[in-house]
Amino acid sequence: MSTPNEESKDDGPGIDAMGSCPVPQSRYDRVVLGHGSGGQLTNELIRLLFLPALDGSGVLSRLEDQATLPFGDADGALGGEGRVGARLAFTTDAFVVQPLFFPGGDIGRLAVHGTVNDLAVGGARPLYLSAAFILEAELPMGDLERVVASMRSACDEAGVALVTGDTKVVGRGRGDGIYIATSGVGLVPAGRSLSIGAARAGDAILVSGTLGDHGIAVMAVREGLEFETDLRSDSAALNGLTERLLEACPGTRCMRDPTRGGLSGSLNELAEASGVGVALEESAIPIRDEVRAACEMLGLDPLYVANEGKLMAVVPAEDADRALEAMRSHPLGRDAAIVGRVTDEDPGLVILRSRIGGRRVVPLLAGEQLPRIC
Amino acid sequence: MSTPNEESKDDGPGIDAMGSCPVPQSRYDRVVLGHGSGGQLTNELIRLLFLPALDGSGVLSRLEDQATLPFGDADGALGGEGRVGARLAFTTDAFVVQPLFFPGGDIGRLAVHGTVNDLAVGGARPLYLSAAFILEAELPMGDLERVVASMRSACDEAGVALVTGDTKVVGRGRGDGIYIATSGVGLVPAGRSLSIGAARAGDAILVSGTLGDHGIAVMAVREGLEFETDLRSDSAALNGLTERLLEACPGTRCMRDPTRGGLSGSLNELAEASGVGVALEESAIPIRDEVRAACEMLGLDPLYVANEGKLMAVVPAEDADRALEAMRSHPLGRDAAIVGRVTDEDPGLVILRSRIGGRRVVPLLAGEQLPRIC
Repeated sequence: MSTPNEESKDDGPGIDAMGSCPVPQSRYDRVVLGHGSGGQLTNELIRLLFLPALDGSGVLSRLEDQATLPFGDADGALGGEGRVGARLAFTTDAFVVQPLFFPGGDIGRLAVHGTVNDLAVGGARPLYLSAAFILEAELPMGDLERVVASMRSACDEAGVALVTGDTKVVGRGRGDGIYIATSGVGLVPAGRSLSIGAARAGDAILVSGTLGDHGIAVMAVREGLEFETDLRSDSAALNGLTERLLEACPGTRCMRDPTRGGLSGSLNELAEASGVGVALEESAIPIRDEVRAACEMLGLDPLYVANEGKLMAVVPAEDADRALEAMRSHPLGRDAAIVGRVTDEDPGLVILRSRIGGRRVVPLLAGEQLPRIC
Repeated sequence: MSTPNEESKDDGPGIDAMGSCPVPQSRYDRVVLGHGSGGQLTNELIRLLFLPALDGSGVLSRLEDQATLPFGDADGALGGEGRVGARLAFTTDAFVVQPLFFPGGDIGRLAVHGTVNDLAVGGARPLYLSAAFILEAELPMGDLERVVASMRSACDEAGVALVTGDTKVVGRGRGDGIYIATSGVGLVPAGRSLSIGAARAGDAILVSGTLGDHGIAVMAVREGLEFETDLRSDSAALNGLTERLLEACPGTRCMRDPTRGGLSGSLNELAEASGVGVALEESAIPIRDEVRAACEMLGLDPLYVANEGKLMAVVPAEDADRALEAMRSHPLGRDAAIVGRVTDEDPGLVILRSRIGGRRVVPLLAGEQLPRIC
C-alpha cells in the first residue's frame, strides 16, 4: 500500500517544468483522473505499480505501444536465418470517450483505429481485433447499433477482422453508456525491428499532419464551444501510411501515434527511452488555426492534445526527405512535416525552439489536461 | 434502431420454458442487465445485433469461446501436411464483478483465469495476455496493488505472460472501482480441432467438479449471507486440466468452461450448435451441499450459476472412462463426473432426468439470474 501524504489531496498540480525528474514513489493513495491522462501520473502508475508487479517476462518494461513476441511451433518457427524473424504483435486499449459520438467519429471508430494504430506503429500488419463491451443499463439499443456499425466499417477500411468479443452490462451509474476494450493481433514481417529506444543523434522527427484535431473536436462538443469552421476528429487507421513509410525507409527507428499526452508525450518517451535530446521547431509543427484558437480559449497547449490519426516517426537523417515524400504521397500524410531533430545535448529532455528563438523544456504532462478523450 | 414495445419495460422475465424458441428481433429498445447474463438475452444481443453488424469474416458466427485463426508468413506457415495446421487462438473478456474481493479470489485472478480458460477450452496453449483497466477515480491505490499482484500470481501459476496493457480513469459514479478487460493469445497445436458443433449422438458429457461454487461464493458476500462452511470461488486456470484431457483423449469433441449462464448455458449452446439433444442425469451432477442450500435460500438453480474453474467436456462414448480417469488424475478434476449423454432425440434441447425419474427441459436463462459475478 502506498503511503498517504499531503500531495494526495492535490489531483491537478499543473504542468511542472521538472516533469522529467524521477519520482521515487506514488504520491497518491487513491487513483485520480490524472492517472489516465497519458502524462506524468500515468507514467508513475506504470513504473511504480504495474511494472514491478506484472512484468514477469520483461516485455512490459519495453514500454512500446504493442508487445512483439515469438510465436510458432518448435518445429515451425516464423524466423528467417540470421535476421530478426517474423513476430506476433499484440496490443490492447480501453476506450471511455465522452461524448460517445463527436464530429469525425465515435467511440467505435476510435476503438478500432486506436488498436490498429498501436499495432501499425510497431511495424506490424494488423490482422485480428477483439472487442469487450461494458454497457450501462438503459443504454439506447440504437446507440449500440450505431457504434457497432461504425466499428465494422472502420475494420473494413483498415483491412482487419473483428474475430472475438464479450459483453457485460453494469447498472445505471456504474458506467457511462459504452466502454470498449479492443485488443489486436498483427504480424511483424521478418527483418523489421522498431523501438522507441533506437533513436540516435541526428535523426529526423516527422509528423504526418496537423496536431490536436481529435482532442479539440471532442472537447468542443463537450464544452459546447462553437467554432466558425467544422473541426473534426482525425480518427483514422494508420496502417496504410506506416506501410508506405516503411517501404520507403526500412531503416525507420520508431513510430508512435501521439494519442493521450499528445506529441509531447511521445517525444518525452522517445527522449527517455533512447537517452537522447529532442529539439523541436515550433514554426515547423502543423497546427490548424482553429485548433490553435480553441487551445488559447481553453488554456491548452496543442502539444499535449490527443490525436487519433497522426503518425510521429523518427528516421535517420539521410532518410528524412524520402520519409517526408512517402508520407505526403498518402492521403493521411498530406500535411506531413519534419518538426525536429534528435540531439546528443540535453539527454532525456524535449526542448522547443519557439518562433522568436527562445528555448523551453516541454515536459510530460504533470496532471490532467483533457480527461476521457479516448 | 429497434422498435420500442411494451416488453422493453420488463427486464427480468424469469425462466421461460420456451427459452429455446427462436426470437425474431430484439424485444428491447434499451440495454437491460439481462443482456449481460450469459442467457437468452445475451444470445439475442449477439445474434440480432453483434453478428449481423460485425461478422465480416465469419469467425464470430462460430460462437466459440475463442477465435482460432491462421497466422504466419506466406513462406512460413505453421501448418503440417495433410492435417489441421497449428493456429492462433484469440479471445477477450470484460470483468465487472462486485465485490472486487471475494472468498477464493478477486477480480484480478478472475480476469486471468477467465481468459486463460477461454483459450484452453479451444485446445490452445495459452501464451500471452493483455489487460486493459478502467479505474474509477478515488479507488484506493492499495486495492489496485492487491488486484495487480494477484493477476501476476495467477499468470505465473498458469504459465502465461502478461505482455501489454492500458489504463483509463473515469470519474466517480462512472465505474465501480475496477473493471478489467483481458485478452489472450494461444497456440492450437497442429492436429487439434475442437468445436461446439462437433458433438454426435452417444457422446459422453463430463464436468470436472462441483457446480456453482463461484457464483454462490460471490453472491453470499454480496447478500451478506452466512454459511456454516467456508464457501469459496472455484476460480482456477484450466489449461493443465485441458492438456491432460486432450493427451488422454485426442478425439475430444469440445470443451467449455461454464461461466455466466452456468452448465445450462454451455449445454444449450452445444445442443443448438451441434443440432443434438442433451440428456442430463440430475443425480450425477456434483453440487456441494452448501451450494445447494444457498441456491434454495436464494431461489436459484445451480445449473445456471457461474463457475470459474470448472470444465465441461464432450467425448466419444468409447473415450468416456478414459476421459474421466484423466480428469480425476488432476487436482482440479478430483470430483469429475459423467453427467449426461448426447442424443439424437429432442434436437436443440437440454433435458434433465430428475432423481425421481421426471423429465424437464432446461432452457437458456431467459432474464437475469446473478448480475456481475464475473
